[in-house]
Amino acid sequence: MTNRQQRVVLARIPTGTPVEDNFRVIDGEVPEPGAGEFLARTVYLSLDPYLRSAIAGRHMGHAPAAVGDLMPGRSVALVVRSRHPDVLEGGFVVMETGWQEYAVSNGRGIRRLDPTLAPLSTALGLLGMPGLTAWAGLTQLARPVPGETLVVSAATGGVGSSVGQLAKVMGCRVIGVAGSDEKCAIAARVFGFDGCVNYRHESWRDDLAQATRRRVDVYFDNVGGPVLEAAMDLLVPRGRVVLCGLIGQYNTGVPITMPLAPVIRARAQMFGLVVYDYEPLFDSYVARAAAWLREGRMRVLEDRAHGLASAPAAFARLMSGQNVGKSIVVVGPEAIEGHS
Amino acid sequence: MTNRQQRVVLARIPTGTPVEDNFRVIDGEVPEPGAGEFLARTVYLSLDPYLRSAIAGRHMGHAPAAVGDLMPGRSVALVVRSRHPDVLEGGFVVMETGWQEYAVSNGRGIRRLDPTLAPLSTALGLLGMPGLTAWAGLTQLARPVPGETLVVSAATGGVGSSVGQLAKVMGCRVIGVAGSDEKCAIAARVFGFDGCVNYRHESWRDDLAQATRRRVDVYFDNVGGPVLEAAMDLLVPRGRVVLCGLIGQYNTGVPITMPLAPVIRARAQMFGLVVYDYEPLFDSYVARAAAWLREGRMRVLEDRAHGLASAPAAFARLMSGQNVGKSIVVVGPEAIEGHS
Repeated sequence: MTNRQQRVVLARIPTGTPVEDNFRVIDGEVPEPGAGEFLARTVYLSLDPYLRSAIAGRHMGHAPAAVGDLMPGRSVALVVRSRHPDVLEGGFVVMETGWQEYAVSNGRGIRRLDPTLAPLSTALGLLGMPGLTAWAGLTQLARPVPGETLVVSAATGGVGSSVGQLAKVMGCRVIGVAGSDEKCAIAARVFGFDGCVNYRHESWRDDLAQATRRRVDVYFDNVGGPVLEAAMDLLVPRGRVVLCGLIGQYNTGVPITMPLAPVIRARAQMFGLVVYDYEPLFDSYVARAAAWLREGRMRVLEDRAHGLASAPAAFARLMSGQNVGKSIVVVGPEAIEGHS
Repeated sequence: MTNRQQRVVLARIPTGTPVEDNFRVIDGEVPEPGAGEFLARTVYLSLDPYLRSAIAGRHMGHAPAAVGDLMPGRSVALVVRSRHPDVLEGGFVVMETGWQEYAVSNGRGIRRLDPTLAPLSTALGLLGMPGLTAWAGLTQLARPVPGETLVVSAATGGVGSSVGQLAKVMGCRVIGVAGSDEKCAIAARVFGFDGCVNYRHESWRDDLAQATRRRVDVYFDNVGGPVLEAAMDLLVPRGRVVLCGLIGQYNTGVPITMPLAPVIRARAQMFGLVVYDYEPLFDSYVARAAAWLREGRMRVLEDRAHGLASAPAAFARLMSGQNVGKSIVVVGPEAIEGHS
């Protein structure tokens, strides 16, 4: 192991949807872990929409990023040298690495992974934050019962595909909303949704009314805007709406608003969801979802890019909605990847 | 009894806040009840904000009104002639009379009153729709527990004063928001609120933060807009917001919107409330609230106008926020009024 590594920093602060040359790959030093710290090697870097608002200073706990700053990001990482009493070398963790090949941590906020439970990269998607987001929104807020109809937007993304599949396990009828016919086909064929509406078709409102038979019990929202308003019009009285994300707003910073009269008219019950509140559910959720995954009741679809240098283009693709499945950059060497 | 009566019709369709000369008092005939119908004499006419959106065709079940149409409205009325098998002459009912001295009904949707339970006019306020609205929002949606802090806007209105007083009975700390120092004084002295913020003061946001000690468990919203957004910022995680009315929008028809990011950030739980869903609760609610009223645990404040011809000016006062307490027009003769 050399003591040099690749890192990705901000070359320009993005305005609107990020583009590849907002970022620059630079050469840096591999840091040394101090006492009580460990050094980890990034294996899978997770690309998620919240990163866009994080660098703009619009995501909780993140200050606005400056030119030259390392891009933030969580990864599955391999502990390669440890001076931490409770973190053993050779173990895998999910941790904030940022967009770089090696990172040091004092162990706070890390999550240890059991490589025998499921493929490691699933810890960033179905068995990670996106999956927990879905699980918390469903079991703690919307609480669907078998036979109810659930609609989810951004249907093939990390959160959306988890929501739909978990709702199927819970016995719901699931209709997705996505931005291409290809994504809709995947929602149905890979994830087993009962239907999917492409919101880029002119007829999408009618399509959604038809697919849901004008009865939406739960709407899991990742986008706000027209899809949220259309779902509201189809909501049964006291139907539940989980407000989880505002992907469009992450790019622009322009606040997404909604009219209140339809909320009253629909007798909607709307729930704001922040996944960090539900970390205590992580272990019990992961144990269940891993079993469902092994049993073939749920599936994983990843949009993989290879090599840290491909992260900027992959992130631009994600933020313009061109990814299909959970967006991941394979950073670690093939030998490590072989674990999964 | 002559066979002539006063009626109030629309002289012009209001644009924005109604003014007195949007209406005209005309002479009309007292109708004859047909078989299965009864004739009732209006005693107390209820003035409520929803009437403004009803005539604009923006309230559920109401088509837009035309020039010359009778103004809609519910009243406490005395049955003066009955050809209805189940409605006895001499009884009091709440019914849709419109703004006129006499009206005929087939009995559908009426509510019979027990004049020994409470003063008759309370059937339009604390023991009527506004009270049931408050009761349903509290017991079916927000479900506050003792010690929680509840904020309610339009604090001295029919709904607001009911919400605050019922929340006090439920053991909450209650902070009102109202549009004048006089109203705030009444919220505290008459209705027993723990505090009240005048949103016309420049410092109102700070005042609200201070009055609530930056902890709002439940916000009962009657107005939307800046007060809703300010309450959202003070909401505890998973705090509840009841969306009940949009008084400002009733006048203008311009949709009141709200940004979604603060809903997520606050982990808010928002509930759209339509009182008509909760009519089955009416009798049990009225029995309880009447007892609390007799015991002096709740109070009634009415903004009374006298004579049907005073309804237009009283309605204009209501819709510009100048009423204090439940807005009522005493239409019936003093002899009948003596019942209450």
